[in-house]
Amino acid sequence: MSAQSATEALTPENLIADMAVSAQAAQRDLAAMPSAARANALRLAARHLLDNRNAILEANSRDLAAGRERGLSKAMLDRLMLDDARLKAVSAGVAAVADLPDPVGEIIDESLRPNGLRLSRIRVPIGTIGIIYESRPNVTADAAALCVRSGNAALLRGGSEAVHSNRAILSAFVSGLEEGGVPGTAVQLVPTQDRAAVGAMLTASGLIDMIVPRGGKSLVQRVQADARVPVLAHLDGICHTYIHSAADPGMAKALALNAKLRRTGICGAMETLLIDANFPDAQGLVGALLDQGCELRGDASIQALDDRVIPASANDWDTEYLDAVLSVAVVGGLDDAMAHIARHSSAHTDAIVTSDDGAAEHFLSRVDSAIVMHNASSQFADGGEFGLGAEIGIATGRLHARGPVALEGLTTYKWLVRGTGQARP
Amino acid sequence: MSAQSATEALTPENLIADMAVSAQAAQRDLAAMPSAARANALRLAARHLLDNRNAILEANSRDLAAGRERGLSKAMLDRLMLDDARLKAVSAGVAAVADLPDPVGEIIDESLRPNGLRLSRIRVPIGTIGIIYESRPNVTADAAALCVRSGNAALLRGGSEAVHSNRAILSAFVSGLEEGGVPGTAVQLVPTQDRAAVGAMLTASGLIDMIVPRGGKSLVQRVQADARVPVLAHLDGICHTYIHSAADPGMAKALALNAKLRRTGICGAMETLLIDANFPDAQGLVGALLDQGCELRGDASIQALDDRVIPASANDWDTEYLDAVLSVAVVGGLDDAMAHIARHSSAHTDAIVTSDDGAAEHFLSRVDSAIVMHNASSQFADGGEFGLGAEIGIATGRLHARGPVALEGLTTYKWLVRGTGQARP
Repeated sequence: MSAQSATEALTPENLIADMAVSAQAAQRDLAAMPSAARANALRLAARHLLDNRNAILEANSRDLAAGRERGLSKAMLDRLMLDDARLKAVSAGVAAVADLPDPVGEIIDESLRPNGLRLSRIRVPIGTIGIIYESRPNVTADAAALCVRSGNAALLRGGSEAVHSNRAILSAFVSGLEEGGVPGTAVQLVPTQDRAAVGAMLTASGLIDMIVPRGGKSLVQRVQADARVPVLAHLDGICHTYIHSAADPGMAKALALNAKLRRTGICGAMETLLIDANFPDAQGLVGALLDQGCELRGDASIQALDDRVIPASANDWDTEYLDAVLSVAVVGGLDDAMAHIARHSSAHTDAIVTSDDGAAEHFLSRVDSAIVMHNASSQFADGGEFGLGAEIGIATGRLHARGPVALEGLTTYKWLVRGTGQARP
Repeated sequence: MSAQSATEALTPENLIADMAVSAQAAQRDLAAMPSAARANALRLAARHLLDNRNAILEANSRDLAAGRERGLSKAMLDRLMLDDARLKAVSAGVAAVADLPDPVGEIIDESLRPNGLRLSRIRVPIGTIGIIYESRPNVTADAAALCVRSGNAALLRGGSEAVHSNRAILSAFVSGLEEGGVPGTAVQLVPTQDRAAVGAMLTASGLIDMIVPRGGKSLVQRVQADARVPVLAHLDGICHTYIHSAADPGMAKALALNAKLRRTGICGAMETLLIDANFPDAQGLVGALLDQGCELRGDASIQALDDRVIPASANDWDTEYLDAVLSVAVVGGLDDAMAHIARHSSAHTDAIVTSDDGAAEHFLSRVDSAIVMHNASSQFADGGEFGLGAEIGIATGRLHARGPVALEGLTTYKWLVRGTGQARP
């Protein structure tokens, strides 16, 4: 705590300001470290997580006991739970981030002006990233690792149900960073006791450079509504798959089943299936989904195909079920499908299945979602699957970064101008 | 006006919503046009501006007459004024933007995943850009041209003092666009009568994708304070030049004079000069600035060098004069200079003058402003000087785009995924 905050009332705003100012100072040092030194500090952090196994698991069992007492759901308790295997995975994840290529310092482009000025744009860290998340304690280490690798400071605000786990993880992580020469204040936990601290983070313009909410829809909604700091997030993943008239029926069936049912709770899961009126096997496709236990809510044409189809209401076209439920409509053709997507998509991931490459390229160029796919399952919408190594989140906004966001999305750029005394005429 | 707004009360919010919805539809068509067709439409717009010379100059003379009646300052009237030469320059500017390389469709990167998925990131327009500006009517054509070239729709809100000029320019511009096959609603003027329309633009999340304020500090301040839509702007240009101990005295003098006095009213003008305690010719440097009629506000060491130096107050280090006034301080060395800049810079443009390349590279890597210069005048901070052809503005925020922003800054990207039936295991 700084001298200032010891004498003034510690409002949430000056708590966050104090933390952010020390984070900014640490970030300047972190950004100036050689890339290999940042990577090495992360490897030490990964090792300290294992070395502090007992303390972390003991802290986690306190959170679990408190959670059981508070009547948390089984699913919540499972998300909260750490064991040997999970802790090893957390540590391995941090070490893997250390091995990722470093975007900082990368030269985006260079030019030589006629007057001899040499210009270059180089990647630099964004600065201080605020991460607001819910029960999973692994986010503490994952998000901190991505921030440190890309030269950013992190202010982490986890859920109150994971408070002891998060503190134990952070303490081990920071001791590793410090052994590696990174100032400990580069990564800080915002106290969970003070609920108003979240509000103070969201409005800390000039102190926090970007907020990443990780959690359910109500968390993201609140962050997007209240933030004055830029937010990197997606609210909904209302992902469409359009089965074109020229789709291979076998591929259409396989992709629809995978896109909907592989894991129903992830943001890349298909929520609406659009079937072309001229696709020859609509009945087989609908039947296969129903046979796998998927509830279908269809328009009149889809209802006519199978008794088990439930009528869709107007709401269904704008609903992210995150469950074995799917809205299904027949569309007149490619333009109809794209019009439906333009109206109802959350701009996360939308796909076409077709053997007609012309139709596919038209769809890829015209559909303006963060991710547009041809002949692939929307469940591939993931930083790991995209080869990014990890992700801080998936963004559906239009600025800065879209789709899976990893290290590059945690950087910005600056212009360097090297002259030999040029004055502007 | 849509059917909806004819029956409902036309609040500023549904006025902007109506305009934005028609702009979005036009933008989809615009983005789907071949690049050459967008360029051709802009060339036609440039020609229509000349063809409608009489109507535009007549409208401008009405604005000038009203401005004189309202007692606008000479400077304001000059900014508002169009004549043959200025209108030709506006038209030539539009034609020049048509000739710029098109960023839309550019492949940022591509990869092939082990499972055969082909990924590419391609540049796409941002969508609908809101531009809020003051008296200069040329902005109407400049900003519209940059938006159209990059496939974006534009909602333009100019100053009420230029209302007739802006309408006449827009009408000519749009008739050119339409002749070139661009829907006229791709570029629209927001009525100036309704002052609340600006507020509605600033909060039109999901309808307007980015706001660019062009004008004085109070305009930018208001936009930054009230906007819920991302804003691309700079509030201040508090640009520093640091004369290092190893600076060539002749170069130091030439660059300081140019950075401060070439044009004092632009955002890249130097506002604070930092002189190293070991620079051998501080007195000559200070004297040269004073001799050129620049008012110097100095710390005690600078005051000791010349009687004409006025004492600086604490405020001076955070002031953008935009005038022949300069704050000047002596700093102990490179670290001191960088600490001063970290504290007082508006992150626009900061420069070092030195013959020591090691010191220069340290400064370039550590100073985190949008533009960092070595041995060059900060007055080069400009899209044209950077070879970008034009600029929509200069940004000092950290996300999306920094420094001079031109066509590339008006784009974002999407991910394309091309598969052959891959389901996620």
